[in-house]
Amino acid sequence: MKFKYSNAILLFIIILGCSSPPPKEVTSKKKPVGIVIHGGAGTILRENMTTEIEDAYRKALANAIKIGYDILKNGGSGQEAVEKTINAMEDSALFNAGKGAVLTAKETIELDASFMDGATLDAGAISGVKTIKNPISAAIKVMSNSPHVMLSGEGADQFASEQGLEIVDQKYFFTDRRINSLKRVKEAEQNDKIISSLDEAFLRNNRFGTVGCVVLDSEGNLAAGTSTGGMTNKKWNRIGDAPIIGAGTYANNNTCAISATGWGEFFIRSVVAHDISALMEYKGLSIQEASRIVIHEKVATLGGDGGIVGIDNQGNVAMEMNTPGMYRAHIDNDGNLMVKIYKDE
Amino acid sequence: MKFKYSNAILLFIIILGCSSPPPKEVTSKKKPVGIVIHGGAGTILRENMTTEIEDAYRKALANAIKIGYDILKNGGSGQEAVEKTINAMEDSALFNAGKGAVLTAKETIELDASFMDGATLDAGAISGVKTIKNPISAAIKVMSNSPHVMLSGEGADQFASEQGLEIVDQKYFFTDRRINSLKRVKEAEQNDKIISSLDEAFLRNNRFGTVGCVVLDSEGNLAAGTSTGGMTNKKWNRIGDAPIIGAGTYANNNTCAISATGWGEFFIRSVVAHDISALMEYKGLSIQEASRIVIHEKVATLGGDGGIVGIDNQGNVAMEMNTPGMYRAHIDNDGNLMVKIYKDE
Repeated sequence: MKFKYSNAILLFIIILGCSSPPPKEVTSKKKPVGIVIHGGAGTILRENMTTEIEDAYRKALANAIKIGYDILKNGGSGQEAVEKTINAMEDSALFNAGKGAVLTAKETIELDASFMDGATLDAGAISGVKTIKNPISAAIKVMSNSPHVMLSGEGADQFASEQGLEIVDQKYFFTDRRINSLKRVKEAEQNDKIISSLDEAFLRNNRFGTVGCVVLDSEGNLAAGTSTGGMTNKKWNRIGDAPIIGAGTYANNNTCAISATGWGEFFIRSVVAHDISALMEYKGLSIQEASRIVIHEKVATLGGDGGIVGIDNQGNVAMEMNTPGMYRAHIDNDGNLMVKIYKDE
Repeated sequence: MKFKYSNAILLFIIILGCSSPPPKEVTSKKKPVGIVIHGGAGTILRENMTTEIEDAYRKALANAIKIGYDILKNGGSGQEAVEKTINAMEDSALFNAGKGAVLTAKETIELDASFMDGATLDAGAISGVKTIKNPISAAIKVMSNSPHVMLSGEGADQFASEQGLEIVDQKYFFTDRRINSLKRVKEAEQNDKIISSLDEAFLRNNRFGTVGCVVLDSEGNLAAGTSTGGMTNKKWNRIGDAPIIGAGTYANNNTCAISATGWGEFFIRSVVAHDISALMEYKGLSIQEASRIVIHEKVATLGGDGGIVGIDNQGNVAMEMNTPGMYRAHIDNDGNLMVKIYKDE
């Protein structure tokens, strides 16, 4: 057996590696991660809330965002962090996505979702699905395992089933709260009654809603996802902004990752998510300034309301809304958690 | 009967009006109009064409664009010009829109269309409809007569029917040419055979296709519309870029009106139509330069192909493609008609 210097050197390196952990400088050179989520924007007012409901939302937001943060901190991909975080919100009956989604005029569920990868500009979306437990996972499968970006209706349900995703009966999604909301919206519509501002607030609050997640992962990649049941009492297989790449969801490593929530029609017409990215890329604006212009000047001027969460490629975040509230949470690179509901918090 | 001076003055004005036509200066002060259309981009090669087919396309393009130009010259709205021009192309079996649309994997027709008004940023879209003779008219009805921007599937068909639009049997849309195309695409897919470059060209040429129209009307307003049968052999209720506001269609009086055609998945991911507008608005680029960057740098880098037609608020036009051809036509304010098929014309 020959003695090899190379072996000795290797052994020395291994011992050195075990005995001395990587210096602090190396750790701090790791790229920062960040995650922001929303659970819908709307006329969310303190006077309509109870402490119990507020607590339930804050806990649900904190639980969901921690799932994504842990994935990112362990070096997981942005895609996985977005998917698992949104899955948690889809599985919660509190949010208008997955279980607890709003009902259509025909008293059915039609779910929309989309995902975009900022590194490759790959994207996937589904709209009007009725049986997929976790729509964001189906959107990601469309991106990864089909030649298409957007599938809809029965075809999208069938694709998800072929892909082995969990399929559930429509009843799974139903909650008493959403059945009551539909009833109230239909009553107001049928009677064409002048509803009080409180009723109006309740209806608006309950008509819209979305969940979304944007992340910066440890590789420096951005990703964005959005999932929703759409608008209460929607008709004619209406599609909102959530599954529209550029409107409800957009991610581009050159700029930012954005997920929107609000009155979808106005967000489509304003191409909200891409417009924020374009203002950053072409005018050099910060994510906060770009988001402010799009939400408060562009969308608001058209008469629309809602909000966005965003993160840029440096980890700067935006949580912008022109509504009284938006369920939202953020965890920065150091693990600091922020959960907010009202605009003025 | 009293004599009235006012009557005499009125009579004098009428006589004057009849005898002297408005002076030339007033006419020339009218804002310029312009119209550009496309009938799809793809691997359109001279060697695959006959003189008869070429002539048929050139005539169909000329006929369609003249309809819109006449409307604009007579002071009609951009919306009407876009609708009637696209209706003509939808009614022609030559183009992949309305009659002559491509077939899905299930041997059905699923049509998509969208329209946007550059003055108001109002928009309407439909996707996956099966019975609406003129999808662009349905997209406009969604904009005008529903609270929504985008409807899909059976719901969109039902809405169009409720609106009194012409409903036809699926058979109306079928043509032998598209039945053969589907057969060939399916054969190639099933056999996974190495197809010759000529076959490849044929298949690609026949898989994609769209019609679109962009106009500047005499009020200075921009409008854009796109209509398509999508992609031959499409599955799972796939939605392409044509009905996506921001991707296949966008209009904004501040910048331009754009209609896209090509490999829809890449056009969605690149948010093509809005990106051209954003490059103009935020970087001050011309419509030609903005279109060149988006088609040749952005879409091409992702691996996508296709083209756009566009017109800006001064009447400047762009017809940009990274394919060997795009069926296209333009009429300027003076009535000069240009019809082209190949890129190098």
